[in-house]
Amino acid sequence: MTLAEQVVQGNIRAAARLMRDIDDNRPSAVQELKQLYPHTGQAYIIGITGPPGAGKSTLVDQLTASFRSRGQKVGVVAIDPTSPFTGGAILGDRIRMNRHSCDEGVFIRSLATRGALGGLSRSTTDVGMVMDALGMDIVIIETVGVGQDEVDIVKAAHTTCVVMVPGLGDDIQAIKAGILEIGDVFVVNKADRDGADRTTRELTTMLEMRNAPEGSWNPQVLKTEAQRGSGIEELTAEILAHRDFLFASGTIDNFLRERNQRHFLDILRDGLFRNALAFMAGDDTLTRVVEGMGSRSIDPYSAAEVVLQDMLGNRARLADS
Amino acid sequence: MTLAEQVVQGNIRAAARLMRDIDDNRPSAVQELKQLYPHTGQAYIIGITGPPGAGKSTLVDQLTASFRSRGQKVGVVAIDPTSPFTGGAILGDRIRMNRHSCDEGVFIRSLATRGALGGLSRSTTDVGMVMDALGMDIVIIETVGVGQDEVDIVKAAHTTCVVMVPGLGDDIQAIKAGILEIGDVFVVNKADRDGADRTTRELTTMLEMRNAPEGSWNPQVLKTEAQRGSGIEELTAEILAHRDFLFASGTIDNFLRERNQRHFLDILRDGLFRNALAFMAGDDTLTRVVEGMGSRSIDPYSAAEVVLQDMLGNRARLADS
Repeated sequence: MTLAEQVVQGNIRAAARLMRDIDDNRPSAVQELKQLYPHTGQAYIIGITGPPGAGKSTLVDQLTASFRSRGQKVGVVAIDPTSPFTGGAILGDRIRMNRHSCDEGVFIRSLATRGALGGLSRSTTDVGMVMDALGMDIVIIETVGVGQDEVDIVKAAHTTCVVMVPGLGDDIQAIKAGILEIGDVFVVNKADRDGADRTTRELTTMLEMRNAPEGSWNPQVLKTEAQRGSGIEELTAEILAHRDFLFASGTIDNFLRERNQRHFLDILRDGLFRNALAFMAGDDTLTRVVEGMGSRSIDPYSAAEVVLQDMLGNRARLADS
Repeated sequence: MTLAEQVVQGNIRAAARLMRDIDDNRPSAVQELKQLYPHTGQAYIIGITGPPGAGKSTLVDQLTASFRSRGQKVGVVAIDPTSPFTGGAILGDRIRMNRHSCDEGVFIRSLATRGALGGLSRSTTDVGMVMDALGMDIVIIETVGVGQDEVDIVKAAHTTCVVMVPGLGDDIQAIKAGILEIGDVFVVNKADRDGADRTTRELTTMLEMRNAPEGSWNPQVLKTEAQRGSGIEELTAEILAHRDFLFASGTIDNFLRERNQRHFLDILRDGLFRNALAFMAGDDTLTRVVEGMGSRSIDPYSAAEVVLQDMLGNRARLADS
């Protein structure tokens, strides 16, 4: 039996093995994912993002418990920074959410940010698909950080929760504005801290200022204290309300089309680049170009055009790279 | 006279115009960059990164003043989150560093994170090259956030300063470990705050634990209060010490080779992807694939292989995408 078949039958060890193969960029993983694909699309994906120190891990832990109490199986994909010492993820699966470690309805996987060739957003999508095929009803994707990469990652989620925290300093206005677009639900965590009400008010005001089109989802700002478990039920309810909205309004169709297109184009982009590397591996093109750049006798733009022409022949329709 | 020629002659308006064209992904910008390329490679590039709220902007402002007082011309490329309202950068060139606004030796440019096709790291490199050709001695690149994208951006810098701040919460250990590799100089800013000594000590300990190869640079941890200007001279001196090390040790050669290779491959990757989009624009491939994914009758991995085969013909050496 292939790994994919075992995953579809609910084999957790096969799922872990396949995720490792994805992480390691093994060619066999692609063959397994092809087989897995028809069995995906059932899970509801929730993205959790926000600046460091906002308490996202604790919140994810509480959300997991909340969905479990509703009888849902929960997968968690946590994007961890890579350790420079071990090459692996720092926080690790083990020290995360110990209380769920004996629960077969919870599957937790840390993804290191060591940057697979395809980028983190593609491997996150692929790992999420494995959890989906394994039968997880809910897949929570938790990112660390607030960069462009994180935005790309949470775009794959049906519902994105942006977690803020009171008093993060000067950059906060800028961050808030930058992430207003991607949030379906906003959470001010550590709500017992000074400034929680102010942060909540500011976020609400900024959201009201948006010129959202008629009939679009109206994001709320909720307060939580994840450490004490307070506000979690309200957050779960709001996530489910957003899910209901997606389906009732038909917004889901557009969302899925865009997500599928992005996924396909990501895979295509990787494939092209791998082919280019293999194409150049046959001669000393890369070395010559890099040396020429060093002496400024070759510019990288013209060099790329030459390689494109060589690779694509008449098929190269665009001269400008 | 082309824009590139005007830039090389020190024409600031031409530089601003070319940067706008780069931002807008205009094909003409590539032609200008080709001309500009031989005139680049003179500027010393400093990357400033760290979590939100660390006071990076203020620190950049102070560093600018410090290098100006040494008679150096300073360019600043600030990566700003994109406003969902205007589509442009939020902080903007104008409200940044007002005190340098009448100084012709300072050129400040905000880059929005709205994600050009080529990604932020490529447009940052291109904009930095314009500043370089314009005659800036120092180019400071400031990122917002601590994601993978930010790491890629600061890889283009000769010297990377990682700015930390006391008491950022639970995630801090993870972040610190994740960025240890990329920092040449570490700064604990807002050093008047509680916990500054502890953060400094922890960072120092973690750096000492690294198994750095013999003869490699030994990063220091400095304390600053950017708001008051304290510790800035020491920071400038440390940056210059790192520059001296790069050249004296010969490490610079390897650094430049790797940077040039990354730049070339970034451009090639973009060019390939643009060609793929143009290739598919001729028929309904993309629509068919996305629809097939929706009904799970087509998987994106196989679909990408078909497009690759069509585009590359016999030249496709790798089946796995």
